[in-house]
Amino acid sequence: MLIMPRLTLDISMSIDGFIAGPNQTMEEPLGAGGEQLHEWAIAAQAWRQAHGMEGGETNADNEVVEKGLATVGATVMGRRMFSGGQGPWEDDPNADAWWGEEPPFHHPVFVLTHHEREPVPKQGGTTFTFVTDGIESALDQARAAAGDRDVAVAGGADVVQQYLAAGLFDEIQLHVAPVLLGGGVRLFDGAVPDAPLALEAVRVVESPAGVTHVKYRVAG
Amino acid sequence: MLIMPRLTLDISMSIDGFIAGPNQTMEEPLGAGGEQLHEWAIAAQAWRQAHGMEGGETNADNEVVEKGLATVGATVMGRRMFSGGQGPWEDDPNADAWWGEEPPFHHPVFVLTHHEREPVPKQGGTTFTFVTDGIESALDQARAAAGDRDVAVAGGADVVQQYLAAGLFDEIQLHVAPVLLGGGVRLFDGAVPDAPLALEAVRVVESPAGVTHVKYRVAG
Repeated sequence: MLIMPRLTLDISMSIDGFIAGPNQTMEEPLGAGGEQLHEWAIAAQAWRQAHGMEGGETNADNEVVEKGLATVGATVMGRRMFSGGQGPWEDDPNADAWWGEEPPFHHPVFVLTHHEREPVPKQGGTTFTFVTDGIESALDQARAAAGDRDVAVAGGADVVQQYLAAGLFDEIQLHVAPVLLGGGVRLFDGAVPDAPLALEAVRVVESPAGVTHVKYRVAG
Repeated sequence: MLIMPRLTLDISMSIDGFIAGPNQTMEEPLGAGGEQLHEWAIAAQAWRQAHGMEGGETNADNEVVEKGLATVGATVMGRRMFSGGQGPWEDDPNADAWWGEEPPFHHPVFVLTHHEREPVPKQGGTTFTFVTDGIESALDQARAAAGDRDVAVAGGADVVQQYLAAGLFDEIQLHVAPVLLGGGVRLFDGAVPDAPLALEAVRVVESPAGVTHVKYRVAG
């Protein structure tokens, strides 16, 4: 029997619903205060190991990271999350992205863009493949690459909203960090098909860092 | 020693950050799908008792309602939450509000409005007092009336945002219901002073109805 890889969202958000703060720049790609959304993850042993770093916490937050890493076989992201840039690749000063020679994904990553580009293989199992024909094509390619694992949408908000509007998510996991950003990039800022759409809360984890990890299943 | 009553927010919100759905009308004051935000509370024994109703669940959701009722000594709300109307009271078809002769508050309620009106005493301990000189005056009056209990802001979003922008909250409790409304009235839609503002997560309760009850303390 063929099991279709599920499409999941796994993203950190502020209490007031932002996934990045205001005034994003190349020096501060998460905007003012945006790094506070990810402190819980950066402190976790599993996150640090994926990023080639030593040490880290082995707490409830770490278990959430571990489960995420273990269940995801391919990632889809937007061009802006990949490099912070836009337009033709030859004009993008960060065209090689943020993550150096061994990115932390360790699986195939599909980047949605309007500008064609050959795949970029990296060390440690990450290959960046550039998809110019839309979110469904990216999802199909990611599913084919994910094996028996999930496909995760990593962001940004515009890409999340496109998959949400198309009704394609099977699961949504939010990591709500205990901070009010007061502005920035909203995660949920668009139409939801079949709204009001009831979800099923699967699991809540209370974190020592004050983050609430909530996982919802979207009825299919 | 004088203990100043704390100002708390205690409100139900959708996953995508709305406290009412789109298309609010007098017949559907919570908008499309908005009632789903409150199903957990309406099912609870303590909520039903406060509303003069029999029966109800005695589960984790009910404990959250009980604690809220026990700790709040006065409520502040906006005119629109009170009646759904605006403008002069004599033109408001719902000037007597939604709650009949024995409203569920059982304590003093202060209604922010631009239109003066004499206080309206009701049965069961609720008196509606109308405040025309702004949020700080309403808070002062509510604190004087709350005794050794908290003052709660009940809504709507515009009133919450005014208190938030003024930096007046001591505690924020969100009841995140497992529904995507896709539109409506956003709870957090304005500036936050001192943003990014880190809060302290005090408590998370996972509900049998799939609601996540999260309480945050605002550092003072």
